[in-house]
Amino acid sequence: MSEPLTTTLSSKSTTVTIRRDQPTVIIGERINPTGRKQLQSALERKDFDIVRRDAVDQVAAGAAVLDVNAGIPDGDEPVLLEAAVRNVMAVTDVPLCIDTADPEALSAALSVYEGKALVNSVNGEERSLEEMLPRVKEFGAAVIGLCMDDAGIPPTAEERFAVAEKIIERAGRLGIPAEDVVIDPLVLTLGADHNAAKVTLDTIEKVVREFGVNITMGASNVSFGLPDRPYINTAFIAMAIHAGLTCPITNPLAAELGIAILAADLVMGKDEWTMRWIDAFREREQSA
Amino acid sequence: MSEPLTTTLSSKSTTVTIRRDQPTVIIGERINPTGRKQLQSALERKDFDIVRRDAVDQVAAGAAVLDVNAGIPDGDEPVLLEAAVRNVMAVTDVPLCIDTADPEALSAALSVYEGKALVNSVNGEERSLEEMLPRVKEFGAAVIGLCMDDAGIPPTAEERFAVAEKIIERAGRLGIPAEDVVIDPLVLTLGADHNAAKVTLDTIEKVVREFGVNITMGASNVSFGLPDRPYINTAFIAMAIHAGLTCPITNPLAAELGIAILAADLVMGKDEWTMRWIDAFREREQSA
Repeated sequence: MSEPLTTTLSSKSTTVTIRRDQPTVIIGERINPTGRKQLQSALERKDFDIVRRDAVDQVAAGAAVLDVNAGIPDGDEPVLLEAAVRNVMAVTDVPLCIDTADPEALSAALSVYEGKALVNSVNGEERSLEEMLPRVKEFGAAVIGLCMDDAGIPPTAEERFAVAEKIIERAGRLGIPAEDVVIDPLVLTLGADHNAAKVTLDTIEKVVREFGVNITMGASNVSFGLPDRPYINTAFIAMAIHAGLTCPITNPLAAELGIAILAADLVMGKDEWTMRWIDAFREREQSA
Repeated sequence: MSEPLTTTLSSKSTTVTIRRDQPTVIIGERINPTGRKQLQSALERKDFDIVRRDAVDQVAAGAAVLDVNAGIPDGDEPVLLEAAVRNVMAVTDVPLCIDTADPEALSAALSVYEGKALVNSVNGEERSLEEMLPRVKEFGAAVIGLCMDDAGIPPTAEERFAVAEKIIERAGRLGIPAEDVVIDPLVLTLGADHNAAKVTLDTIEKVVREFGVNITMGASNVSFGLPDRPYINTAFIAMAIHAGLTCPITNPLAAELGIAILAADLVMGKDEWTMRWIDAFREREQSA
């Protein structure tokens, strides 16, 4: 088992460290217009009120990092993403995860960002590696590497591992250390393939054992189309944390998942004197 | 990683196989007078009505194996355990787990049992190994090995692994194959030591990697004394199943844990076409 690596992110005045032997870090996923009509039309009008409110609400609910995505159909993404980043920085002080596949938008956002950001994301495609990684290096950011390439999302853990290896290797060649590469193993829905989650868990284990890097993941699609989804999401996030997931991208306003993550940290021995568990219980009691 | 071993248990007409790549097998824990005053005084009167009702209820709720314990203060355990086993066999047809530390009671119960039982348990103490293992062999049973010895429950995964290794080795010398040894890593409460569950998970992983044996465990003491226990138990059982737990000893009448185990199996790819999950959901809907 490789030693745990530490990914350090920062904003103007806050530093967040992500590491396997520390509590799980929640990256808030809400600032993303995909599937959110209201946010999409607000961004079309260059109205950032929802973005600012989402930022404040997610930090209050426990997000330690915020994902910022401003991609809308026919939108001027460099302009919108830069503005979204400025707006989020104006109301919160957590590190940001700049979420775009557009190299120009990435540079625009990183230019105005104050601190060390996480870039979401590169993948194993040549074009992605060539266009995005030099910008990650230029701005001294960390980067999420998705386990997919030109051929799509590989069906086996071995193949996803190979993509992770390629991304870590290519980042290393540019001088981006492994500790600044966070791997996303990707997860498909169980409804389509009952081995979908196991492949993801196996990928996490292989990548962590070999490289010791941090692992991110969206954790709710796994149960899409199945009944009683929270039970499934809860089991999956607990197992993924056991396998090595360190910084899931989730909605911190969904209380069940937040409690599941706290419980998983408690069971993993990441909650000294069980204080976080007991404090969170008291908060729930007071707000009930 | 060692190949998964198969533990086969049987009753007069039912065979249960326990194996890492198959759905989790629930061993029902209810037939045990410890902490159950009503059952204790019934056993004092040699009244087995509660035992019979508990047997039927647990099988209906999903137990595939039933633990039978008849140990009461000043009770004649050989007589009581034999009678309890006869009573359970009269009303159900699942394999039994004979739960006693008394060698005479064990022989009495195994003498009347029809099939291949699981014996709960031996531990690493010389006396336990010498008195219990030959009886396990004599009756062709399988056996649970607890990771503790004369010095108590070891604090580290390495030491618990060493006890498991000793038990498997000693069983092997008597001709009991590793597939018939089910290891219980034991778990202490998180409230006393915030690393308690992690030590257990690490023990499971080490034992499974080295020997491929099946793993049992009681899963609810881990949260003793802490608030909102079901969340903790749920996270712990999911992680333990990911690590290699295959046949937990639990109360199948506690709905939350049963759903958590089904969800964990689903995530682990042990639920082909997600049929068990969907069937269980429909049953919950109908009974709601």
